[in-house]
Amino acid sequence: MGKLNTKETIIKEGARLIHAKGYNNTGLKEILNAAGVPKGSFYFYFQNKEDFGLNVLESYAQFIQHKAVKYAGDKCIAPLERLEHFFDAYQRHFKKLGFKFGCPIGNLMQEMSDLSDTFRARINTIYSRMQLFIEECLADAQNRGDISQTIDINATAKFIIDSWEGAIMHMKLCKNEQPLEIFKQHVFRYILTIESNRGVR
Amino acid sequence: MGKLNTKETIIKEGARLIHAKGYNNTGLKEILNAAGVPKGSFYFYFQNKEDFGLNVLESYAQFIQHKAVKYAGDKCIAPLERLEHFFDAYQRHFKKLGFKFGCPIGNLMQEMSDLSDTFRARINTIYSRMQLFIEECLADAQNRGDISQTIDINATAKFIIDSWEGAIMHMKLCKNEQPLEIFKQHVFRYILTIESNRGVR
Repeated sequence: MGKLNTKETIIKEGARLIHAKGYNNTGLKEILNAAGVPKGSFYFYFQNKEDFGLNVLESYAQFIQHKAVKYAGDKCIAPLERLEHFFDAYQRHFKKLGFKFGCPIGNLMQEMSDLSDTFRARINTIYSRMQLFIEECLADAQNRGDISQTIDINATAKFIIDSWEGAIMHMKLCKNEQPLEIFKQHVFRYILTIESNRGVR
Repeated sequence: MGKLNTKETIIKEGARLIHAKGYNNTGLKEILNAAGVPKGSFYFYFQNKEDFGLNVLESYAQFIQHKAVKYAGDKCIAPLERLEHFFDAYQRHFKKLGFKFGCPIGNLMQEMSDLSDTFRARINTIYSRMQLFIEECLADAQNRGDISQTIDINATAKFIIDSWEGAIMHMKLCKNEQPLEIFKQHVFRYILTIESNRGVR
């Protein structure tokens, strides 16, 4: 294995284990065993477990970014439809995984927000990017007149991403897609419509 | 300390530590130190850490149940107002804690759903009770004509509790109450209104 490959392999195996078991619940030894590298090799690439964890976080962020571009990046498609494609793609992805593991960013947000300010700051940045992606879809939808002009797209994007994370968490618990279906129904039926202007009456 | 007191003290200290740090991240030794009891004493009351963890879960469930009765149990108050009181009470509670720790049930749902079927089943039962409490408020509201007859109160209760959990998780990340405010605004402005009948047109 070349140097770049070794580093990537450690991150990939670590990302898989942390996604499945949590950050604090995954030992360094387990990661090294899975990656098939000696301990010295780990410290050649990473200062410590936290430094490694931040690299893993970045790999999750890239995965999500990739999905966002793939399923919602095509501006020829109507913005609300793009957004729905994105949620549908994730739903298929979660189904393939047997509704296990959930959102790696949501997992670490829940686990690490009170335990490490370094993690918290990095997760906050990634989460803001996820929220911005939704906000951009809403801005396009508002410009086209597909949703009400009275919607505060910044607040609504926050509500949507938080509710999505909550639905994913519940999916992990009940091991079926019902929470994701209910999420989509409610968001697209009650909020993202042209008629949702009750807030200002 | 009497026997009941010792058991209760271990559960109380364990509940505090697990709420702050997570289940797998909290060692038995730490719990015993905090409770000021020897290891033998622990195994007198609990078969193992999992058995202890289930007792801790039950103590969280009782706390939530208590808050639900206290802030939303008074049937003289209109159902949507009761529901708002409940969310407001939690918001004040979280604020007092510096927006740390979050929901203990949400934390363990996120951490344990894939790691222990025993935990998962117990959390599922508790979470269903939380959802049912919301559903009962919605049923009352629908009977009084305060919300649309077209709302599927079971699905909407699920959406509300999941979105609430997502908002709490985000609150832990950003360390302020904005996600909770946004949650309330969206739920009460767009969904829990008499006019939200677009779903069936």
